[in-house]
Amino acid sequence: MAKRIAEGVFSMDTPVRIHGFAAVAGEKEGDGPLGSCFDRIIPDSHFGMDTWEQAETRFQLEAVSLALEKAQLSREDLDSICAGDLINQCTGSAYSVRELDVPFLGLYGACSTMAEGLIISAVLTDSGIARHAAAVTSSHFSTAERQFRFPLSYGGQRTPTAQWTCTASGAVILSRECGSVCITGGCIGRITDLGVTDINNMGSAMAPAAADTIMRYLSAVGTAPEDYDFIVTGDLGIVGSSLLLDILMKQGVDISAQHRDCGAMIFDPEQQDTHCGGSGCGCSASVLCGHFIPMMMRGEADSILFAATGALMSPLSLQQGESIPAVAHLVHLRKEKL
Amino acid sequence: MAKRIAEGVFSMDTPVRIHGFAAVAGEKEGDGPLGSCFDRIIPDSHFGMDTWEQAETRFQLEAVSLALEKAQLSREDLDSICAGDLINQCTGSAYSVRELDVPFLGLYGACSTMAEGLIISAVLTDSGIARHAAAVTSSHFSTAERQFRFPLSYGGQRTPTAQWTCTASGAVILSRECGSVCITGGCIGRITDLGVTDINNMGSAMAPAAADTIMRYLSAVGTAPEDYDFIVTGDLGIVGSSLLLDILMKQGVDISAQHRDCGAMIFDPEQQDTHCGGSGCGCSASVLCGHFIPMMMRGEADSILFAATGALMSPLSLQQGESIPAVAHLVHLRKEKL
Repeated sequence: MAKRIAEGVFSMDTPVRIHGFAAVAGEKEGDGPLGSCFDRIIPDSHFGMDTWEQAETRFQLEAVSLALEKAQLSREDLDSICAGDLINQCTGSAYSVRELDVPFLGLYGACSTMAEGLIISAVLTDSGIARHAAAVTSSHFSTAERQFRFPLSYGGQRTPTAQWTCTASGAVILSRECGSVCITGGCIGRITDLGVTDINNMGSAMAPAAADTIMRYLSAVGTAPEDYDFIVTGDLGIVGSSLLLDILMKQGVDISAQHRDCGAMIFDPEQQDTHCGGSGCGCSASVLCGHFIPMMMRGEADSILFAATGALMSPLSLQQGESIPAVAHLVHLRKEKL
Repeated sequence: MAKRIAEGVFSMDTPVRIHGFAAVAGEKEGDGPLGSCFDRIIPDSHFGMDTWEQAETRFQLEAVSLALEKAQLSREDLDSICAGDLINQCTGSAYSVRELDVPFLGLYGACSTMAEGLIISAVLTDSGIARHAAAVTSSHFSTAERQFRFPLSYGGQRTPTAQWTCTASGAVILSRECGSVCITGGCIGRITDLGVTDINNMGSAMAPAAADTIMRYLSAVGTAPEDYDFIVTGDLGIVGSSLLLDILMKQGVDISAQHRDCGAMIFDPEQQDTHCGGSGCGCSASVLCGHFIPMMMRGEADSILFAATGALMSPLSLQQGESIPAVAHLVHLRKEKL
């Protein structure tokens, strides 16, 4: 059974297990510092399809297929799949799940989607509704760029605070039976909006949401940063990460030793011209599935907080003068002691 | 505890209760056959705001506020809110929940969102993570029309199979303690796509999904249509409803006596020039909260299946030659015998 600890914060009496997981990434992500950790690198940004949107769908399908294969499961074993992405109406996910033919809960959490999907899938698994529940998300540089910013062929200049949307997907399959890395609790995020309106500085818009969620979790469960090997954020990038550390330091909490940011890790900003780092739902999903979960499996980390952050604006809402609301969802991952 | 009955189909050992609910609708919906059942009619389609998108956000806020008020709860009592809408990146919901400051799970299920939100909220409540969990959704004729079809000022002709996106919102608050109408089970929908590509005939695209979900639920729990007072679909409209009856009849199941469709009920097609009926997330949400739940409260119905249907395409995916994937999620509502 799950237990409420505080508003939105919960723990699992019986941990839910990560039964399978996989990460798939594009060529640029494959050339980055984490390149060797992804299950598969797809050099063709069209992934053999006619459109980038279809390619993104295929990235998701590939991540789910590999996660199933690694877990020695078939899609008939899945009782639910939580999926979402950044494309309008989340079509990347709708068309991928159409192929999978699995009961489908569509999510929109922008780049927080992986953590949101893990929370809902963990609760479905814990409750007994799902024997195996999958969570998947993706992003694609080219689908995001033309939808949120400019047509690629326009060749627009990127600002120093801009992040680079990752072409990547990550999938996790949960069960109650199998796997040594567990979800033992989490925190559903609240929306935080301090008035940032710059679509090229989303790290700054999301940092306060990450701070709120991390603080709420730490104080609700009564732990300190030192109790964790890593406190991982989704994709704040370099500017947003430094802002997160500042916000928490002002509240007397120093996470600088434990903090890692998937957006800041996935690219080499000097060599790869990615400015503030990576972003997109697929960024934290692929770094979680390619880097952090394998690290825990190998026994190199026992306890990780994974807080994926999402910026919930649209190009239209910004044109209408709104600022950027952000959310961060958190799951606590723990390696089971043998 | 919840119990898995079949893939995606579950029942609740301890029913989760509808503690509060409210429906808010626009002027045209207020002029329709169900006009008297909504908690509040808003004649101004801008709801005092600068943009239609901001108006839709206010519709959601109003529905949640009224549901809280009727339940004698405050927003601090909510541990979670599931919200979604049709606007790109679901900004209608993000901006409404920003005001509410409640832990937020963003959903994209198109017009199936109300049932999706009820399923997730019921599981969160049942598990003990949420004392009170809210589900809300909305749609707005003017935000949907310009996003999915044409600018309103273009004055485009509507086809006979077209539906009219409702300007409306519905909100439900669940708890384990209070309320005589309960959620006792449900079915997470699978994606069905029989190749319909006409954005003006979404009832036909969604009917097979509704049929799949209803059949899966009936056979998994071993019941027949006669076991329910009503089998309610989201917004198939007139064409989609007749198709649903045909599909099920071919499988030997006759739901014609029990079937009601929120889209076919909300407008008078002769008097209101709405062609096939209403649509939009707010359609089934407001008819559920304004009509069916109150009917159960009054003892006029004891057992209802509520299956909200969603068409998961985007204008872009159709331009790229894709067909319309659809999903239907179902919850079983039962009036507690005293």
